[in-house]
Amino acid sequence: LKNRSATNMRLRLPLLCIILEVILIILFGTLVEYNVDTDAKLWNANKNQSATRHDYENEFYYRYPSFQDVHVMIFVGFGFLMTFLQRYGFSSVGFNFLIAAFSLQWATLMQGFFHGMHHGKIHVGVTSMINADFCTGSVLISFGAVLGKTSPVQLLVMAIFEVTLFAVNEFILLTILGANDAGGSMTIHTFGAYFGLVVTRVLYRPNLDKSKHRNSSVYHSDLFAMIGTIYLWMFWPSFNSAITNYGDPQHRTAMNTYYSLASCTLATFAFSALVNPEGKLDMVHIQNAALAGGVAVGTAGEMMLTPFGSMIVGFLAGTISVLGYKYLTPVLESKLKIQDTCGIHNLHGMPGVLGAVVGAVTSALASPAVYGNGLQRVFADGEPGEWNAQSRGGFQAISLVVTLGMALIGGLVTGFILKLPIYGAPPDTHCFEDGLYWEEYLECTTESTNL
Amino acid sequence: LKNRSATNMRLRLPLLCIILEVILIILFGTLVEYNVDTDAKLWNANKNQSATRHDYENEFYYRYPSFQDVHVMIFVGFGFLMTFLQRYGFSSVGFNFLIAAFSLQWATLMQGFFHGMHHGKIHVGVTSMINADFCTGSVLISFGAVLGKTSPVQLLVMAIFEVTLFAVNEFILLTILGANDAGGSMTIHTFGAYFGLVVTRVLYRPNLDKSKHRNSSVYHSDLFAMIGTIYLWMFWPSFNSAITNYGDPQHRTAMNTYYSLASCTLATFAFSALVNPEGKLDMVHIQNAALAGGVAVGTAGEMMLTPFGSMIVGFLAGTISVLGYKYLTPVLESKLKIQDTCGIHNLHGMPGVLGAVVGAVTSALASPAVYGNGLQRVFADGEPGEWNAQSRGGFQAISLVVTLGMALIGGLVTGFILKLPIYGAPPDTHCFEDGLYWEEYLECTTESTNL
Amino acid sequence: LKNRSATNMRLRLPLLCIILEVILIILFGTLVEYNVDTDAKLWNANKNQSATRHDYENEFYYRYPSFQDVHVMIFVGFGFLMTFLQRYGFSSVGFNFLIAAFSLQWATLMQGFFHGMHHGKIHVGVTSMINADFCTGSVLISFGAVLGKTSPVQLLVMAIFEVTLFAVNEFILLTILGANDAGGSMTIHTFGAYFGLVVTRVLYRPNLDKSKHRNSSVYHSDLFAMIGTIYLWMFWPSFNSAITNYGDPQHRTAMNTYYSLASCTLATFAFSALVNPEGKLDMVHIQNAALAGGVAVGTAGEMMLTPFGSMIVGFLAGTISVLGYKYLTPVLESKLKIQDTCGIHNLHGMPGVLGAVVGAVTSALASPAVYGNGLQRVFADGEPGEWNAQSRGGFQAISLVVTLGMALIGGLVTGFILKLPIYGAPPDTHCFEDGLYWEEYLECTTESTNL
Repeated sequence: LKNRSATNMRLRLPLLCIILEVILIILFGTLVEYNVDTDAKLWNANKNQSATRHDYENEFYYRYPSFQDVHVMIFVGFGFLMTFLQRYGFSSVGFNFLIAAFSLQWATLMQGFFHGMHHGKIHVGVTSMINADFCTGSVLISFGAVLGKTSPVQLLVMAIFEVTLFAVNEFILLTILGANDAGGSMTIHTFGAYFGLVVTRVLYRPNLDKSKHRNSSVYHSDLFAMIGTIYLWMFWPSFNSAITNYGDPQHRTAMNTYYSLASCTLATFAFSALVNPEGKLDMVHIQNAALAGGVAVGTAGEMMLTPFGSMIVGFLAGTISVLGYKYLTPVLESKLKIQDTCGIHNLHGMPGVLGAVVGAVTSALASPAVYGNGLQRVFADGEPGEWNAQSRGGFQAISLVVTLGMALIGGLVTGFILKLPIYGAPPDTHCFEDGLYWEEYLECTTESTNL
Repeated sequence: LKNRSATNMRLRLPLLCIILEVILIILFGTLVEYNVDTDAKLWNANKNQSATRHDYENEFYYRYPSFQDVHVMIFVGFGFLMTFLQRYGFSSVGFNFLIAAFSLQWATLMQGFFHGMHHGKIHVGVTSMINADFCTGSVLISFGAVLGKTSPVQLLVMAIFEVTLFAVNEFILLTILGANDAGGSMTIHTFGAYFGLVVTRVLYRPNLDKSKHRNSSVYHSDLFAMIGTIYLWMFWPSFNSAITNYGDPQHRTAMNTYYSLASCTLATFAFSALVNPEGKLDMVHIQNAALAGGVAVGTAGEMMLTPFGSMIVGFLAGTISVLGYKYLTPVLESKLKIQDTCGIHNLHGMPGVLGAVVGAVTSALASPAVYGNGLQRVFADGEPGEWNAQSRGGFQAISLVVTLGMALIGGLVTGFILKLPIYGAPPDTHCFEDGLYWEEYLECTTESTNL
Repeated sequence: LKNRSATNMRLRLPLLCIILEVILIILFGTLVEYNVDTDAKLWNANKNQSATRHDYENEFYYRYPSFQDVHVMIFVGFGFLMTFLQRYGFSSVGFNFLIAAFSLQWATLMQGFFHGMHHGKIHVGVTSMINADFCTGSVLISFGAVLGKTSPVQLLVMAIFEVTLFAVNEFILLTILGANDAGGSMTIHTFGAYFGLVVTRVLYRPNLDKSKHRNSSVYHSDLFAMIGTIYLWMFWPSFNSAITNYGDPQHRTAMNTYYSLASCTLATFAFSALVNPEGKLDMVHIQNAALAGGVAVGTAGEMMLTPFGSMIVGFLAGTISVLGYKYLTPVLESKLKIQDTCGIHNLHGMPGVLGAVVGAVTSALASPAVYGNGLQRVFADGEPGEWNAQSRGGFQAISLVVTLGMALIGGLVTGFILKLPIYGAPPDTHCFEDGLYWEEYLECTTESTNL
């Protein structure tokens, strides 16, 4: 590497991190307040007024276990899932860590600004923490598309824009259109995937094959990636149910997701063996497609989808995801010039769209006969008398279109901003390489054991 | 490998997976319903009838954190524990993933069929999810005995039979005999272990030493296995307490297990060093025997065993487990032709039997003087007046005998079914080898870092 | 290694483990009882007396999810964080496992003896389990300073003394001085760090450079260490909030910690790149300094620190931690002869002192205007009328001084005890080497895959 200074992060990265954090601190100081459940004065005043209010009704006890599961998915799940590359483990876990730590702070502000202001202040508690982690998940999905081809500075800049647009899109869907999307098939997965795909399209590298030998896994890196996969798979029921209403919706969402994922896993193994001439399983499929079942019930999971319905959706999601890895990803790269390192189109893109469609159909089929008094608790506008399931289904479908539009335009603008030659992006010859941004390390142990 | 087609999974695996999942989906569609706590109509109707029923009383909030811990044990715990083999990590985590995803669905049906039918329907919620994961654990224990010597198709077939027999045995123990076994010393560990040992006996391979060089660990594979060990160890208190009654039983069970495991760990380190001429510790012991304390309080953990009693049981369990690995496993292989890859006899078999005995004794010693009004909440038939602790102890002992009988006969039948030469089992020369069922992978990175 | 017998653990380790466990079992048998929430008779008697007492009020449901998160930090977090050394992974995870399993039992007794006796008995439940895990954390911090240079026997002996002194110091701080320290900035981090630093100073090895080539990481060992880092980072909100009061304090503490850590992570990446001439990130900083934000809000986290205040504290903690690794650690070693393997001074020492200071200041600023009726729930002596915030701040400051004194004197005495040549400590030529205490292992796989 002749020109080392080109990728030198010594000034760029510290400057950006410090400026961003100082801005965050100032904005938190001026805008953010404890909500009723976290404020010493408000919570205890409230308790005295109402004889029936007890500490176990604090939202902490309903939501915090789910929050921690989501947190594990964001930091361990996404972080380790991307360690499959043979020489990019430090960056996968490390940059994932950095941009997630930034995004969750920025998301708190953006989401609060668009749909959480109370008398000019943003109120925070465990629900805002979950929502911030959700928004962060979206950025990490996009990270998967550009993995190995971007500097940490580029990634932070991407996060600034993506978090902002995520909050706008979420506001349109949940507040204006009144859509349901508790597990984020649309807001998180579809948005994150198509945003990332457009960004990587704009950043297209015609000579990326110069780093081709590093764009693959080795034995142990695939095992590290399986840590990420398994944690995402296990905790997806918590992800989809984390912000649903208390009681039956939270319980039902977790269970629907559990069955969808189990079914998806069998489809993934089936089709992975089927598409290989020797009938051998591909770790890429197992690591990714087995998760598509969680994505695909992200909207309908809180509804009365039934385990039966969840398993059908999961099976379809696993199938299209494996087929996407096998047949679509190579075409996207050769024909559309979309270099999608992790194959997010197969794990988040198509299953996200499937989830949006399933959500629209399940909404359109909802009726008081099935939901009883629970109808209002799932559908915000489910008041008796004014209930119209079909228009509800229509708004869900519109939400998908809005999300795709926001992702495409947002990704396009962000992509061109990231194309500026000022961020220290890696040269084509040194993509997928930790050594560029991390201090030297030894590959093997220095001596054999002779005692 | 001359005859590659012999182990080719291209048709067998997809066909089996798809047929099984389609059957599952059809049966779920006809038989499975939401229970009161997951159904929108039922839960909310119920709430209106009773002024004292609140969302925080939904079983989700009592059980879901425990469920997630159990889930981690099944997928990360068992999966990574078996990655100790140098070249079988993909299969360990991957096949564990596949058969667990199948078994939990099949178990929901079988357990529901035998002891969860309501007007011809199986009602599901977080408790059935935990029970399904428990049954899955039993299959994964048996997997440990045949690890490296079976094709994924064989494993799925084994799971079909084992899950079914597990549900029958569980029905006999819990419903007919009225036994206590919340943590499954008998139903899960004893059953899974002896079932698996008989299966591997029937599948005995006289020429397995042709793959001997692969039947061992390397440095990093032992570290991956420790991930599994530590997660099993940490979450075992949640495992044993996951389906006990609310309140003191759940709390007490978790604590008894915690102390049993801590004591077991000291015994494990002590005896591991003691049985080695140079006083060196053996990773096999640490990875496995340290967990025996959790197995051995699986029945008595919910009773008033006291921390003192739990620590004694844990110490004994760790001791017999290490001694089993050192002295019994080689004899089982050479004399009884039982090739037990993971040593499940030492981790689940003997400690499971110990747990059953401890459970019988602790039951026989139970009295209203110690349990007070809590007697009924631990022992289903603990009504004042009709309480007979000694007959209770007797039924516990009978339960152990039934479990051993079911495991031996079930394992025998299943073993002979698995012996049919149609499943693509690995040849003796290629056991313990990922390359047979997984796409090629690189062993090392392709170049050194020169920047 | 000529004199193998010198480090032979065959008699020493089993003897010590068995004697310790037998003593523990005897003391538990005579001193330990179930508390109200774990005892079948007491819990159910209590329920009948009070119509308003329900099973969901059992402390299990308030604390157990936090306990499990803390448990993961102790066994996975600390255990894997120390696997960064290229050839000391077995010992890092394994000895961490051993001394934690011992310490949590011993801590239950010592903490119960000093501040949990009821009519001559120690009452145990989930809160005592969390406190025991906390005390264990302190021992594991000290372990980080002597990592690679001590035998397992030495570590157990260190744990005996450190746990005892921890309990004494905790008693002085929480009971006598009435200080607040829910997350243990003082009791856990400051105490554990300075205790460990003094021990390693006493055990100074002038010829440690004979093992210098092993005192570093390799690529995969750094990834294993990141597993530890990320788990510590994610679950630190649960750590700091695990034993605060129910309701708003627990909720607020978790959230303050979450924001402190996020801010700390940006500071860590910023300064790690800044102090490197080529702007490259150092895995040592990312693995450790990013956690300092959790340490530094261990005292003030339960107070009305606000997210804004938490982020400032986190940013400072990350900054001083990175600078400590870069500039202070080499000086401590060369000038003060303190060989601190893991750099605990930077992760626990300085951030712990910072946390104590922040706690004193935040206490001094507390007022009924801000806390309302919640004042008493955060500050034990916060009764209306007698409230004196400034004296409260003073007691917090005195607590820091006491902690430092206890750690220094305790470490000194313990260090000299550990210096006795009877524990089988490794020779200078074989530090940081698993082969000394663990059975032989293969470094690489035995053949390549040719199918």
